[in-house]
Amino acid sequence: MTGPPGAESVTLDLLKKKMAEFAKERNWEQFHSPRNLLLALVGEVGELSEIFQWKGEVPKGLPGWKEEEKVHLGEELSDVLLYLVQLSDICGIDLGKAALRKVELNAIKYPVSKQQSQNTNNNTLKS
Amino acid sequence: MTGPPGAESVTLDLLKKKMAEFAKERNWEQFHSPRNLLLALVGEVGELSEIFQWKGEVPKGLPGWKEEEKVHLGEELSDVLLYLVQLSDICGIDLGKAALRKVELNAIKYPVSKQQSQNTNNNTLKS
Amino acid sequence: MTGPPGAESVTLDLLKKKMAEFAKERNWEQFHSPRNLLLALVGEVGELSEIFQWKGEVPKGLPGWKEEEKVHLGEELSDVLLYLVQLSDICGIDLGKAALRKVELNAIKYPVSKQQSQNTNNNTLKS
Amino acid sequence: MTGPPGAESVTLDLLKKKMAEFAKERNWEQFHSPRNLLLALVGEVGELSEIFQWKGEVPKGLPGWKEEEKVHLGEELSDVLLYLVQLSDICGIDLGKAALRKVELNAIKYPVSKQQSQNTNNNTLKS
Repeated sequence: MTGPPGAESVTLDLLKKKMAEFAKERNWEQFHSPRNLLLALVGEVGELSEIFQWKGEVPKGLPGWKEEEKVHLGEELSDVLLYLVQLSDICGIDLGKAALRKVELNAIKYPVSKQQSQNTNNNTLKS
Repeated sequence: MTGPPGAESVTLDLLKKKMAEFAKERNWEQFHSPRNLLLALVGEVGELSEIFQWKGEVPKGLPGWKEEEKVHLGEELSDVLLYLVQLSDICGIDLGKAALRKVELNAIKYPVSKQQSQNTNNNTLKS
Repeated sequence: MTGPPGAESVTLDLLKKKMAEFAKERNWEQFHSPRNLLLALVGEVGELSEIFQWKGEVPKGLPGWKEEEKVHLGEELSDVLLYLVQLSDICGIDLGKAALRKVELNAIKYPVSKQQSQNTNNNTLKS
Repeated sequence: MTGPPGAESVTLDLLKKKMAEFAKERNWEQFHSPRNLLLALVGEVGELSEIFQWKGEVPKGLPGWKEEEKVHLGEELSDVLLYLVQLSDICGIDLGKAALRKVELNAIKYPVSKQQSQNTNNNTLKS
């Protein structure tokens, strides 16, 4: 692996390789069964939720949050992502490929209506 | 597993842009507050867990799973990822950058011991 | 809301016995390992979250919710409870006893301040 | 409220009253919106999952667990229960009544087959 990539070009494949290497170096592969990783992911989703739990509704962009709160949020979002990448890897699922396919399936399931594409103001109820 | 050309290079930034466009086309941006997206993510983690709930321990690589079960799993993993990407975006967090930083922090927090790097067989208890 | 005779006296022990009997009658005890039940609980928490996911902030008492939405909510809350009761049972934990003890621990951890007990209006930040 | 009840007779109604009183005494009612309590519950489910995350399959009764681990588990199970009770209360749902009704609905959805009631050995796949 060469130097750190520009943040914009971070691929799921890069994260997968980094995490596999990380586990191997520490002899942690023995702990990385699918259900262990899934429960670890649930644990991190819990920590992510704790950040938002007493805040009431939070506006987009998190106005008024301290820089350290945003850094903490970035860490918890990352923890969820890193376990998700490892869980996919251990299950033999190509997460990037699966995600692109899911976006396509969603586009078929929720077609853009003519009205919506004209950017009218009517509120379409999301199902 | 060989994916279609490009599957290896799926970036978090690409998924972010696709999901932002997807929401805009459907007039769904109004629903995408941080806590709405967080609860949607929790919902998808629930669906992911349901796949594994009655299976007992599951070996790596999911031997014996039907192809359709693996496809379903890929969809649920993707749903979690896509909400995570959207939640990060709406909060103004660069998820790829944050994830790379978290890997580095983890490497400092859990240094590779000499024994571990020599690939000895002793089981190091993961904290 | 007035329930049927007895609804106020529903004990955790009653629910535990009903669920144990339910599983036994259906030969489902074989599936009820701790981690299976835990993942089933996570699945139900996901379904509970889906009820709230696109609603923005929801006021106490759920004003404006349809009766069928409240019934559905009661079902999902119950599903979480019933798996929690079963998980506790299978782990040999007396949930009622543990909950009473936890309330007492919380009272020690978060003592009532003099100001709070005088019902002043100052907002105490919850930790 | 009189002295502590026998653990076997802990009702959901008792816990509801204790938690309502607890919040009122600390001026915490202001924080107890439905979605705040829901996210707090998700946080506690995360902590519960963390207890089980690196353990692989865990047998019924938790053989080999230290007493302090069981006490910790009882606390996390209780935290989930106490937020569930508070969330139900704030939403105006009678949790005990709803749970009894859900048990009855489940009995209709999953009828006991003749074979099962005869306690034969065939494994019925749980849906």
